[in-house]
Amino acid sequence: MKMKALRIDPGNLQLSDVPLPAADGEAVVRVIKSGICGTDLELVKGYSGFTGTPGHEFVGIVESAPDSPGLDAKRVVGEINAGCGECELCRSGDPRHCPGRTVLGIVGRDGAHAEYLKLPSRNLFEVPENVSDEAAVFTEPLAAALGIMERVDINTDDKVAVIGDGKLGILSARALRATTDAKSVTLIGKYDEKLKLAGKDGIETLMADQAGQMNGFFDVVVEASGSETGFASALDLVKPRGSIVLKSTFHGTPTWEASRVVVAEVSVVGSRCGRFAPALSLLSSNQINVEDLISEEFSLTNGVAAFERAGTKGVLKVLLSMG
Amino acid sequence: MKMKALRIDPGNLQLSDVPLPAADGEAVVRVIKSGICGTDLELVKGYSGFTGTPGHEFVGIVESAPDSPGLDAKRVVGEINAGCGECELCRSGDPRHCPGRTVLGIVGRDGAHAEYLKLPSRNLFEVPENVSDEAAVFTEPLAAALGIMERVDINTDDKVAVIGDGKLGILSARALRATTDAKSVTLIGKYDEKLKLAGKDGIETLMADQAGQMNGFFDVVVEASGSETGFASALDLVKPRGSIVLKSTFHGTPTWEASRVVVAEVSVVGSRCGRFAPALSLLSSNQINVEDLISEEFSLTNGVAAFERAGTKGVLKVLLSMG
Repeated sequence: MKMKALRIDPGNLQLSDVPLPAADGEAVVRVIKSGICGTDLELVKGYSGFTGTPGHEFVGIVESAPDSPGLDAKRVVGEINAGCGECELCRSGDPRHCPGRTVLGIVGRDGAHAEYLKLPSRNLFEVPENVSDEAAVFTEPLAAALGIMERVDINTDDKVAVIGDGKLGILSARALRATTDAKSVTLIGKYDEKLKLAGKDGIETLMADQAGQMNGFFDVVVEASGSETGFASALDLVKPRGSIVLKSTFHGTPTWEASRVVVAEVSVVGSRCGRFAPALSLLSSNQINVEDLISEEFSLTNGVAAFERAGTKGVLKVLLSMG
Repeated sequence: MKMKALRIDPGNLQLSDVPLPAADGEAVVRVIKSGICGTDLELVKGYSGFTGTPGHEFVGIVESAPDSPGLDAKRVVGEINAGCGECELCRSGDPRHCPGRTVLGIVGRDGAHAEYLKLPSRNLFEVPENVSDEAAVFTEPLAAALGIMERVDINTDDKVAVIGDGKLGILSARALRATTDAKSVTLIGKYDEKLKLAGKDGIETLMADQAGQMNGFFDVVVEASGSETGFASALDLVKPRGSIVLKSTFHGTPTWEASRVVVAEVSVVGSRCGRFAPALSLLSSNQINVEDLISEEFSLTNGVAAFERAGTKGVLKVLLSMG
């Protein structure tokens, strides 16, 4: 049996016919839709040397789940870190930093831009009925946005800025606004229409070329632009003893003036994955809108074109449909 | 009236005859001894474009203190950040991040490598009688070492590493050992005899070329080497979700792999100045030994040679004596 999948050889992406995933005791999921993430685009460029099928945002139907028959035929999303199951971290229920982990479509495990994928059953979460397929694909990036609040305390008087008006930046701003008591949340970007999209629900917006007037103003600055200049802007914008959250995974080594981090006593905090349960709960209760972040949907067979589109400036989320 | 002072023009250090400091309502202190800090050496190289008299570690006798006559003739040390006195931070009693601050011998204010200096009276602390002049000069760097604990929580089970067996690294390791319940404190360095010096009082030591075996082991890593490779080593040594404290001020922009900070969800925390009261209290109660960190003492008139000596590999604290 063969299936269609997008495959990365470093520097190259193509559609291939590949064998179906061998279950090996894990659950097999028929993918309905997947979402293209900025990390996928970095992987194609060579980030982390990944080869195989990318994709870590999906919704699908469980085909088989040997150790969790209750999941059969259920519509699910899946946490992307698959731990060894035996180390201290895994036994505590959080495999996100298991040193032996694989990561769906990112580290040592084929991902979701394919007709089928496999994951341990314990990674899967049933999707509430009132959450559409399109919204469910956002569970992973929304969880990642909520992960910010695991890494920094946001206090009632805090002024928070998010740099980057891409999908991750807008989701982060919305997550901050919906789940914290921050005094203000400001999204800083380059695209008028994207800032307008975000400028609802109490989010303030600012064009990047005007941001200099806010230097030293923010208690917390989230860098979600993935650009090499984003970190320097964050250093300008943050208060002494404030926090910068690095949210974007990017390929490269931006320069930074380490002495500014020391002199202003800034904290620079990395943030990667979040948990799915709170993200699904926010989606199900309609506390965060995500479907307006979809720019376009392609079929999997047009996946290479979809990646090209997703990498075009100004484009938000591009979905792949396997149907 | 003239006095002798070391003066920096960028890239050049020389002994000069300069006017005595004009008091302007501040206290004037006759310096007894001063200490040469790594930051001083960076300033000579051009860090921050400083011109004037460097030096921010000293002990001296108050000559005049117009608004605090009780300080007259007292032996004092002095906090180095002189705030505007009017902003919110200054009014809360902590001028360390006052945006209008000057900093003794570092920013907009002549420093301690001179026969006299001036500081606001509120910056001065009387030195307890049982603290020697030599030990008192360490109040500032010891306070800076204690500042680490203002910036990260050290828990009972934490394993802490300090990179760098210079004076700042050894002081930091001693401060961590003396004032926290850390499970272990490990000093990582390159000099056998310096590690031996530190390897008392329960501090573990490790040669830098052996440190690879401890990768991913430490909850907190303090970068106190001031070398461009120190940060990369810290990233290797720290656990996922652990903290790296940047303690050294250095001139340059070390490269760093931002994606490692994101993926391992590390916190990188800048730490600069501490408060003097707890440092004096530790010195007075003999909880931290500092005098064994003195390599040599020069007279102020031999200050240029003293700087050269202080910049020699393997040398610890070099003091200047004004007497």
